[in-house]
Amino acid sequence: MARIVMKFGGTSVADLDRIRNVAAHVKREVDAGHQVAVVVSAMAGQTNHLVEMTRAASPMHDAREYDAIVASGEQVTSGLLAIVLQSMGVDARSWQGWQIPVKTDNAHGAARIQNINGDLLIERFGIGQVAVIAGFQGIGPDNRIATLGRGGSDTSAVAVAAAVKADRCDIYTDVDGVYTTDPRIEPAARRLARISFEEMLEMASLGAKVLQVRSVELAMAHNVRTFVRSSFEAPDAPGMDDFDNPPGTLICDEDEIVEQQNVTGIAYARDEAQISLRRVRDRPGISAAIFGPLAEAGINVDMIVQNVSSDGQFTDMTFTVPNGDVEKSVATLDAVRDEIGYDAVQSDTGLAKVSVIGVGMRSHAGVAATAFKALADKGINIRAITTSEIKISILIDGPYCELAVRTLHSVYGLDKP
Amino acid sequence: MARIVMKFGGTSVADLDRIRNVAAHVKREVDAGHQVAVVVSAMAGQTNHLVEMTRAASPMHDAREYDAIVASGEQVTSGLLAIVLQSMGVDARSWQGWQIPVKTDNAHGAARIQNINGDLLIERFGIGQVAVIAGFQGIGPDNRIATLGRGGSDTSAVAVAAAVKADRCDIYTDVDGVYTTDPRIEPAARRLARISFEEMLEMASLGAKVLQVRSVELAMAHNVRTFVRSSFEAPDAPGMDDFDNPPGTLICDEDEIVEQQNVTGIAYARDEAQISLRRVRDRPGISAAIFGPLAEAGINVDMIVQNVSSDGQFTDMTFTVPNGDVEKSVATLDAVRDEIGYDAVQSDTGLAKVSVIGVGMRSHAGVAATAFKALADKGINIRAITTSEIKISILIDGPYCELAVRTLHSVYGLDKP
Repeated sequence: MARIVMKFGGTSVADLDRIRNVAAHVKREVDAGHQVAVVVSAMAGQTNHLVEMTRAASPMHDAREYDAIVASGEQVTSGLLAIVLQSMGVDARSWQGWQIPVKTDNAHGAARIQNINGDLLIERFGIGQVAVIAGFQGIGPDNRIATLGRGGSDTSAVAVAAAVKADRCDIYTDVDGVYTTDPRIEPAARRLARISFEEMLEMASLGAKVLQVRSVELAMAHNVRTFVRSSFEAPDAPGMDDFDNPPGTLICDEDEIVEQQNVTGIAYARDEAQISLRRVRDRPGISAAIFGPLAEAGINVDMIVQNVSSDGQFTDMTFTVPNGDVEKSVATLDAVRDEIGYDAVQSDTGLAKVSVIGVGMRSHAGVAATAFKALADKGINIRAITTSEIKISILIDGPYCELAVRTLHSVYGLDKP
Repeated sequence: MARIVMKFGGTSVADLDRIRNVAAHVKREVDAGHQVAVVVSAMAGQTNHLVEMTRAASPMHDAREYDAIVASGEQVTSGLLAIVLQSMGVDARSWQGWQIPVKTDNAHGAARIQNINGDLLIERFGIGQVAVIAGFQGIGPDNRIATLGRGGSDTSAVAVAAAVKADRCDIYTDVDGVYTTDPRIEPAARRLARISFEEMLEMASLGAKVLQVRSVELAMAHNVRTFVRSSFEAPDAPGMDDFDNPPGTLICDEDEIVEQQNVTGIAYARDEAQISLRRVRDRPGISAAIFGPLAEAGINVDMIVQNVSSDGQFTDMTFTVPNGDVEKSVATLDAVRDEIGYDAVQSDTGLAKVSVIGVGMRSHAGVAATAFKALADKGINIRAITTSEIKISILIDGPYCELAVRTLHSVYGLDKP
C-alpha cells in the first residue's frame, strides 16, 4: 500500500470522456490498494475563457475578483471527477482550496502556498475515500480564494503530496516523460527512467516544458518523488507498475539514481539575442548598474558573461535576452549610459542556446571540453559559454541549433540504451 | 440614506453588456447615498449548462458535488459585477456564501438558509463598499457549498436583507411588477403599486411567477419590504424614486397599504384535472388514507373539496391535480381501493382554476357571491369551489378560463385606476 497524489492537467480533463479516462487511471490505483488524492486543473480552454471575460469586464481588474472567477474552473472539474468516480463505485469527494485548507500568501493571481493542512485528507484516506482536489488555488489570509498563477496545478499537487507525506506524486500530462533531448530534433532521444531534481530544474527552465519550475523546486525542497507520465496512455496498459521499465520519468533525489550518467540531457532555447556592452568602465557595482534597470523594465536576462578585464579599467559585458526584448533592452541601456559608462552597445538576434546537463559532470572532468571539440568538428562557432556545477550552456548562431543538439546528444552517447 | 439589497436574475446578467447595465443600476443607488448589497444569479444558461454536465457525468450524482459545480455560476457573475463596479469608480467586492457566511441546513441541492451573519457586510457598508453576493448558495454544516434549489437567488436576497436589516429588497426581474391579472389575457390589467405578503403568496403559488414562493414567505416572516421591478428599464429612467408612481410593485405588510381594495387580483391555473371518488366510506382518517398515498407518489394535489355526507356514511371527495398526473393518480388510488373503500373514481381533464385574491375580502361580505353571479351571467359552469380567508378559487372548464378571468377582473373594477 502506497499513498499517491495524481495530477491531471487541462487537456487530460477536457471533456467528460477524458474525465472518465482519468477516473479509470484513479480506479486502477485504488484497486491496487493505494491511498489516492487527485489534483485537477480546469477543463482545457475554460481558464482562458474565464480570463478573457475578466479582462473584457475591465482591463484593470482586481486580482482578488480575478481569482474568485478563474478558480471556478477547477471547482467544476473536481466536482465532475468526484461524481464519475462515485459512479464507478469509488468513494470520492471534491475539495476546494479553502476547505482543506491550502493556505497561501496574499499575492492574488500569483500566490504561493504557505501551508497545507493534510489532516482532513489523511482522515479520509483512512476510510478509503479518494480526495479530488481543485488545483491552482488556495485561500489567502484575507479569507478569499487565491490562485497560484497559470500552470500552478503542478505546484498544488506537489504541495499536497508533501503535506500528506505521499510516497509519490504522479503528474499526468500530454507527454510521457522527460527525454534526453527534444525528440522532434533528435528522433533517437530516449525517455529517462529517472532524473534528479537539480537536473530537472535545469531542463525545465531551459524549456523542457514538462513541469512548472516552481513545482520542481517544491518537490526538491520536500523530497517529493515526482513521476511524470502520459494521461493519454490507456489506464489498463501493461507495465504500468513496472518500475524497471516505467511508463514515465521519475524525478527524485540523485541518491536514488544508481547508474549515474555524466550527462543526462541536452536542452536548448531558440530566439535568443545577444547584447554586448563594449569597454564598460570596470568598477564595483557595475553589474547592478546594468542589470538593475533591465530588471525594472521587466526584461528577462538569461546568460551573463563578463570577462576579467585585461587592463583593470575596461571590460566587455555580454548577456542574452529574448529576441523580442532587444529594442527595449537597448533603449533601457541608452537611458542609463552616463551612469554605466560604456563605449558602445552591440546586439545580435536569431541566436540559440544549447545546454549540456548532468549531475555526473561534477565528478567527471572533460565534459565541457568534449562539447567544445564536438561543436568545433561540425564547424559551429561558439559565441559565449556559461557553466554551473551541473550545466554547460553554449551560445551559437540560430541556424546551427538542431545540428548542435544532435551532435551533443550523440557525443555523450545519449542515443544508446 | 437607506440600506438596500438589490437582486438581479440570470437574464439580467446574461452577458457583459447586461452586467454593465446592472452596474449602472447599482451606481445610481450608491450615488443617491444608499448602502447597497447586490445578490446575483448565474449568467442565463450557465446553470443549465452546469446541471447538464453534472447529469451527463452520472444520472445518480452526489448532491454535494452537484452543489459545488453549479454554485460556480454565481461565483463568476459576482466577481465580474464587482470588477465592472470598480471600473466605474464604485468600491465593491464579491462574497461567496461560505465567506459571509450564509449557513444552510444539510439538504444539498435544495437547502434552506438557517442563519446569515450580517456583521461583515454591515462593516463594509460603513466604509461605503458595495457587497456583491453570489446568490443561490450557502454553506452547510458539513463545510461544503449548498445550493438553495433553482430560483433560490430571490430567497438569498430576502434573507440577506433580513440579516442586514435592510430598508428594502429590490428584486430586478424581466417583468416590471405584479399585475391585477395576466396582461396577456386582460390588456386592461394594471400594475399594483403595493400588494401584501399574504396576497403575493396566493398570487405566486397560483402561477404569477414573479417571485419564488419561498422568498415571499421569508419576506413575510421578517417583514422585508420587497420591491419587484424590471432590470430592462434604463438605469437613468425618470421616476425611479417616485413612490407615488413607482416603477414596480412593493410587497409589504398590509398595514402599509392605505387604500385597501376588496380584491387585489385575479390569478389562474390551466391544465388542471379533477378527480372524484364516489361514495367513499366516511370515517375518521379517510382524508389521510386518500392523500397519503398520492403524496408518496409525488403527486401535487391542489384543490380539495369534501362535502358533508348526507347520510353520515358515504361522501364524495373531489380534488385537482395537474393534467399530466391523472393516470398516475388513478392507478395510485386503485392500488389502495380496499383500504379506502369507494364505489368509483371519475376524472376529467382540461380544466382551469380561477382565483379571486384580496386581503380586503376578510372584512367585506359578498365578494364570493359577486364572483358566482358574474360567472353565471356569462354561462360559465362552476365545478367546485374552495375558499380561504383571502382567496376564492373556482374550478371551471378550461375553454372558459380567459373569459372568466376577464369577467372577474372587470366585476371587481380592477381595470379602473
